[in-house]
Amino acid sequence: MKTAQNFNSYQSVCYVSSQQKINTHENDSDCLILLDQTKLPFEVEYVSLYDVDSICEAITKMVVRGAPAIGIAAAYAVTLDCQRLLETTDLNLIKEKLRFSSAKLRKTRPTAVNLMWALDRMNKIINSSKKETAQELYLELLLEAKNIFEEDLETNKAIGKFGAELVPEGASIIHHCNTGGLATSGYGTALGIIRSAFESGKQIQVYLDETRPRLQGSFLSAWELEQLGIPYAVIVDSASGFVMKTKGIDMCFVGCDRVTSSGYVANKIGTYNLAIIAKAHNVPFYVAAPLSTIDRSIKLGQEIEIEYRSGEEISKVGGKWMTLDSVTCLNPAFDVTPPELITGFVTEKGVVYPPYEDNLRALFHNN
Amino acid sequence: MKTAQNFNSYQSVCYVSSQQKINTHENDSDCLILLDQTKLPFEVEYVSLYDVDSICEAITKMVVRGAPAIGIAAAYAVTLDCQRLLETTDLNLIKEKLRFSSAKLRKTRPTAVNLMWALDRMNKIINSSKKETAQELYLELLLEAKNIFEEDLETNKAIGKFGAELVPEGASIIHHCNTGGLATSGYGTALGIIRSAFESGKQIQVYLDETRPRLQGSFLSAWELEQLGIPYAVIVDSASGFVMKTKGIDMCFVGCDRVTSSGYVANKIGTYNLAIIAKAHNVPFYVAAPLSTIDRSIKLGQEIEIEYRSGEEISKVGGKWMTLDSVTCLNPAFDVTPPELITGFVTEKGVVYPPYEDNLRALFHNN
Repeated sequence: MKTAQNFNSYQSVCYVSSQQKINTHENDSDCLILLDQTKLPFEVEYVSLYDVDSICEAITKMVVRGAPAIGIAAAYAVTLDCQRLLETTDLNLIKEKLRFSSAKLRKTRPTAVNLMWALDRMNKIINSSKKETAQELYLELLLEAKNIFEEDLETNKAIGKFGAELVPEGASIIHHCNTGGLATSGYGTALGIIRSAFESGKQIQVYLDETRPRLQGSFLSAWELEQLGIPYAVIVDSASGFVMKTKGIDMCFVGCDRVTSSGYVANKIGTYNLAIIAKAHNVPFYVAAPLSTIDRSIKLGQEIEIEYRSGEEISKVGGKWMTLDSVTCLNPAFDVTPPELITGFVTEKGVVYPPYEDNLRALFHNN
Repeated sequence: MKTAQNFNSYQSVCYVSSQQKINTHENDSDCLILLDQTKLPFEVEYVSLYDVDSICEAITKMVVRGAPAIGIAAAYAVTLDCQRLLETTDLNLIKEKLRFSSAKLRKTRPTAVNLMWALDRMNKIINSSKKETAQELYLELLLEAKNIFEEDLETNKAIGKFGAELVPEGASIIHHCNTGGLATSGYGTALGIIRSAFESGKQIQVYLDETRPRLQGSFLSAWELEQLGIPYAVIVDSASGFVMKTKGIDMCFVGCDRVTSSGYVANKIGTYNLAIIAKAHNVPFYVAAPLSTIDRSIKLGQEIEIEYRSGEEISKVGGKWMTLDSVTCLNPAFDVTPPELITGFVTEKGVVYPPYEDNLRALFHNN
């Protein structure tokens, strides 16, 4: 399918509706194209997905990853599902099926809240739509999914702008995991800040945590910074203290999968360690947080469900056994960083400082 | 060569003198047999080395690793060198050549002090020996090298005994890198404590930092604990905070490559991070330190030379490219942990608590 040109190389999720397709031998349905992030940086390969089940599998297997990108993929999955039901005349039956698909998508990964947030937006359309035909409902859902995508891009750029103001000329920065175009609609959150600072002409040096076990730092973030021409060096995750001590680090930027109302942050395993190490060296620690990652329904870190993934992610690297397959591994995919370790949240509405409970709440009330 | 039976599986260094050899078609010289630690855990393979140059290469490439094991290998290398010079009649020329070999060995790895300490002991023999023949000098050096080996084994067992007393029944322990039989003469320092606690009948659970970049935790320590039947789980290095927060960790045990007179500890990269994380969770952090790792000639951490190794150790795993070879990496092999993060040093003379400057000094005066 000749649809890869729809992408720029930082875009991991692209919806192609049937009317956009020009190649006659293509399948007649809409499809979701994902840049297969399990193959990067070795191969730039796209997969075309046509139904909810294959998208659920792609999310679980991390073909698409990054909290915002997962949310966008799930919203498009619901749209895709509706398009497959256009022949059905009973609109209530369609809505029932869409709610079922939405529930299935919701279960793919438990920690990131953008997934739930995007599906809530889609469900709201499903539940409240006044449209009388399947075609109209489909177009309404497609518009909402596209809005989620476009708003994410705007959000990223606003976060980039606010965050870049925090970055001094000549700054050295530590970054964890991947929060770039690949993890989002196409610009990035924490890496978007770094990109924005660089594009505004600041000389910066980035140290990328390689981010075990899945090496999003050396596989994905290094690949993005390489293409953007931003100076970087990959370090092992456990070298952050040494690097802060010896290289004069000015700040850390990380993304997040979920923020509670009082400022606890669930993010990729290792974020909590990095925040403790930063505190010990008086290095400011900023979390890039779109409002869509703030889960106001919970307050404390322990309320966040932490996903445990297969131990094979530790004992295998890039699909190859790195040690004996008999080795026992414990593989929590996320950890929780408490608010007292966080200098500020960079949101699309500006930088939020403590006290977080009040100041995060205010974000939702001052429109 | 049928000399592998000289080993038990936890012994990484074995010297075989020519008179021990029974197989007539064997080379007639002494040799040093190393368990090739770059091949573990996939292959248990031994290499036989006959000269200083090949032993220097084996140390540099980490065929043999672990501060005590490196010291033992270097001491035997000097002995081996002397055996090759038995035909030389000029004893001063022999001593000159041995000092030259010793200097070459000293340069292989800069951070671990056991290497320098073992070579100092060999040099002392070279410089002060009253022997009148090459054969006698050779036997004197062989005896000293064997003493270094045997003393290390006794030291390990004493550290194991003192350390095990610190371990409560049912303890959960985090361990970094590999400090077991493979890193020493055959029992282990920090892993020796864990082994000793387990052998005394205590139920324990060990969490092994995988220890990037070279994965000594999942390659070597997991292999040793598997064979000893000690319950363990490998974690990524950056999960230590999460594990302390959620699994009730009682203590951390690590080894060391060099300890200054005031208690700064150079050890495998990631030790400093782990010590900060332990402090933040009020988890006791113990360093297993044979007296041979204490470098009384320096006081502060910044006086320790930190070895930087090739970035390929990060971008390759087990010899295979794990990411693009164009990726820029920064790879410090060690870091320095300050004394205020260390609960105690477990030495062969007992556990040493602060103030370290006085209490470490006392170890050398109370014989």
